[in-house]
Amino acid sequence: MKPLQFTLAQLAEILGAELRGDAQKVIVGLATLQDATTDQLSFLSNGHYRKLLEHTQAGVMLLSSTDAANYSGNCLVVADPYLAYAKLSHYFDRTPKQVAGIHPSAIIAESALIDSTASIGPGVVIEEQAVIGPNVIIGAHCFIGARSRIAENGRLLARVTLYHDVTVGQRVVIQSGAVIGGEGFGFANHQGVWHKIAQIGGVTIGDDVEIGANTTIDRGALSDTLIGNGVKLDNQIQIAHNVQIGDHTAIAACVGISGSAKIGRNCMLAGGVGLVGHIEICDGVFITGMTMVTHSITEPGAYSSGTAMQPASDWKKNAVRFRQLDDIAKRVRVLEKHTQK
Amino acid sequence: MKPLQFTLAQLAEILGAELRGDAQKVIVGLATLQDATTDQLSFLSNGHYRKLLEHTQAGVMLLSSTDAANYSGNCLVVADPYLAYAKLSHYFDRTPKQVAGIHPSAIIAESALIDSTASIGPGVVIEEQAVIGPNVIIGAHCFIGARSRIAENGRLLARVTLYHDVTVGQRVVIQSGAVIGGEGFGFANHQGVWHKIAQIGGVTIGDDVEIGANTTIDRGALSDTLIGNGVKLDNQIQIAHNVQIGDHTAIAACVGISGSAKIGRNCMLAGGVGLVGHIEICDGVFITGMTMVTHSITEPGAYSSGTAMQPASDWKKNAVRFRQLDDIAKRVRVLEKHTQK
Amino acid sequence: MKPLQFTLAQLAEILGAELRGDAQKVIVGLATLQDATTDQLSFLSNGHYRKLLEHTQAGVMLLSSTDAANYSGNCLVVADPYLAYAKLSHYFDRTPKQVAGIHPSAIIAESALIDSTASIGPGVVIEEQAVIGPNVIIGAHCFIGARSRIAENGRLLARVTLYHDVTVGQRVVIQSGAVIGGEGFGFANHQGVWHKIAQIGGVTIGDDVEIGANTTIDRGALSDTLIGNGVKLDNQIQIAHNVQIGDHTAIAACVGISGSAKIGRNCMLAGGVGLVGHIEICDGVFITGMTMVTHSITEPGAYSSGTAMQPASDWKKNAVRFRQLDDIAKRVRVLEKHTQK
Repeated sequence: MKPLQFTLAQLAEILGAELRGDAQKVIVGLATLQDATTDQLSFLSNGHYRKLLEHTQAGVMLLSSTDAANYSGNCLVVADPYLAYAKLSHYFDRTPKQVAGIHPSAIIAESALIDSTASIGPGVVIEEQAVIGPNVIIGAHCFIGARSRIAENGRLLARVTLYHDVTVGQRVVIQSGAVIGGEGFGFANHQGVWHKIAQIGGVTIGDDVEIGANTTIDRGALSDTLIGNGVKLDNQIQIAHNVQIGDHTAIAACVGISGSAKIGRNCMLAGGVGLVGHIEICDGVFITGMTMVTHSITEPGAYSSGTAMQPASDWKKNAVRFRQLDDIAKRVRVLEKHTQK
Repeated sequence: MKPLQFTLAQLAEILGAELRGDAQKVIVGLATLQDATTDQLSFLSNGHYRKLLEHTQAGVMLLSSTDAANYSGNCLVVADPYLAYAKLSHYFDRTPKQVAGIHPSAIIAESALIDSTASIGPGVVIEEQAVIGPNVIIGAHCFIGARSRIAENGRLLARVTLYHDVTVGQRVVIQSGAVIGGEGFGFANHQGVWHKIAQIGGVTIGDDVEIGANTTIDRGALSDTLIGNGVKLDNQIQIAHNVQIGDHTAIAACVGISGSAKIGRNCMLAGGVGLVGHIEICDGVFITGMTMVTHSITEPGAYSSGTAMQPASDWKKNAVRFRQLDDIAKRVRVLEKHTQK
Repeated sequence: MKPLQFTLAQLAEILGAELRGDAQKVIVGLATLQDATTDQLSFLSNGHYRKLLEHTQAGVMLLSSTDAANYSGNCLVVADPYLAYAKLSHYFDRTPKQVAGIHPSAIIAESALIDSTASIGPGVVIEEQAVIGPNVIIGAHCFIGARSRIAENGRLLARVTLYHDVTVGQRVVIQSGAVIGGEGFGFANHQGVWHKIAQIGGVTIGDDVEIGANTTIDRGALSDTLIGNGVKLDNQIQIAHNVQIGDHTAIAACVGISGSAKIGRNCMLAGGVGLVGHIEICDGVFITGMTMVTHSITEPGAYSSGTAMQPASDWKKNAVRFRQLDDIAKRVRVLEKHTQK
């Protein structure tokens, strides 16, 4: 287990940062500028909070060289304080460490290949021909379907389901309750009755992907559903069959992406966004919260839909008028024509 | 096991109600005014249904004194019929009772403290230094992470996940599939690549909280995510890291609350509402369904966004005009100026 | 295990189709028109893709007689190529088959009735008086509550929860993480504090229903929540207490349906739709994605709400104007009156 206290000298060495102040001072935790106590580290990454700097009790600050110039307390000077905080956060993480080996209550198919450095938790079920790579951690009650593969340094928290034929890259983290490879929503309608289409594709997940709690990613209908390298998916996201998500795209919680939609690289989708199926979003697109995306996007930039919140009594009047909007627009045109006469 | 039949005399005693009618009549269940049979109890709490009272077959009614005055059948006169129904409903609940003790298939860390009156179901995993209080019921396949604590009379249905360092108050009910303490969505972007920020805070949940099926509550980035006393959360709600929810606030299904949002006491959020992060909602706010909340609310009252539903063919015309709305507004202003000349 | 390769003669026999071409040719998989290789079958069901037909490498095509007339390669002539593909897809499905019997790690109440042809996976928990029918497959770690019943040929994937008193019809498929019969969101407010109402109804699910991953269906408050025959529910759908859904209605992912809403037969709800409670939707209604349904619908047809997506900078201007819409409409009326003078 890593120690959870560090001297400023140690922190400076971890970050490769310039230390200004007491090298022997001991830090036991991280906190915000407002909350930090004298044995905690804090950081300033958003200029909005700069005014709080003079009042902070933090034992040491992560600062840019500009901010450090105006600060008299202990500080570590770094190029990007937020990135430095991200790095240090892992040193103060109390997530229990798992030991290598297979818990006696786990149920492992004989043909499954489990690396000797992997940690398989209680009650885990691993089916035929699955492959679990080096240093992979699989939490309690996970289910790993036949022929699925998890590459090295993966980490599945408790109660994750991978169906069969799901391929997971290196260093992928999957939170509890996520379901990867479920049977997508494919039915053929014949005379009013829906007939199920077997979903015979799989799911391929790249390296360094993060998948949030209770997120669902359906297997492909024919070919695989594809999640690129470095993609970050928050909680309760729904990704339908044959969606493709480009590298380093980040998607916030409660987003729903319909079948065969293709999203580019380095996109950001805010919470609650919905995409119809069979559209294509180019690289570098930012979609604001709860936007309904009904067509492809071919130019990078920010996109939105919806209306702004207001008191319900006012809103009701405007919402009624929305249903008359085309009529209002036509009447304005008539008025303009009349005026131009 | 509680008996599932009661005489009117017994029901009157449970409620402290005035009984009008046959004290020895036996009641075996509860039903709505329309559905109730002669051996069932019903209630009238919404004046909208008053006209159904004369036709009901119910064996006994819960009524206010005003409604009782006009009713000739058996009735129990109470101050608040809906509250009285809420109380009686528990006497007719057939949820299986669990016996105290630890199921032999449960896997409990040696350092965990389990009260002797607690019931630990099959396959439950409880990790190091977790504390399970008196009369707590933990359903099958739950996972309780290291150092998490559940205070007395808590009830977790099957397949609930608590990560480490989650603190749960007294009498808290958590439905299946809920995930409490998942790692929040925290990443620092450096040259187009997302770097994970360890989430080192926990979650603190007050007393008398209810958490719905498949709801997710992320642990804090630095300090804890906070759920107040008496908060009621429906199914499939997403609560991001460091959200704070005030006492006795009720939130309906499918709501998403972004990081560090702070919601006051006695608020109500209807289904499908979304909140951006880092905003503050004051006490006593009601937000209507599917509203997109993009800024703080400082006055109690009702708030809304969105547009009213209409036939799709009409809607398409109006939706197109929405994209011209600013232009239309400007043209109206021009017309007004012209008219004023 | 079914073989995963078939001659064209075999495929023609399965489908009752007319074969044009090499009857001995072997097919090993299915693919789209663009992706298909010479040993794979493809299909043309959407005229939009007809132009791809001349370039496909597919070893055989499923075609209508019209399209077959213009195609020189191997083909199987069928009335409905998409329906034929749906049927064939099951022959190429590599979902592992489960053998009959009860896994030794399963925990089954003595009073539960398990048909000898059923397959009960590892870690499954089945409580008192539950009934599991012929050929039912229950995946790892499922929980089946007391008195719940699953009729013949049902299939529950890993990690499904059925609470007590849930009745499931024949040939029902339930994906991982679904929670059926959770306690609905029923509380009586008394002086600002919410009092729980025990949910004493159950859930009744018809035949041929499909329930997606992490979907939640709450038990009824008094009578049962009802899901009709042939209903198809995608992932992450929330169905509140006492909802009724008519036969052969299909609901896409992330839809939320509030309590006691009643939806007719043969309806389609696109992704992200939300319904308020206590409304009624007639048969044959189609609701487009992310629509907010705030009142009953009495005429079949398509319905929508929301606004169309646009660049965020334009959107902001229009969203502000939405808050002035009632005022703008009134001003247009004033202008019209002035002009008519």
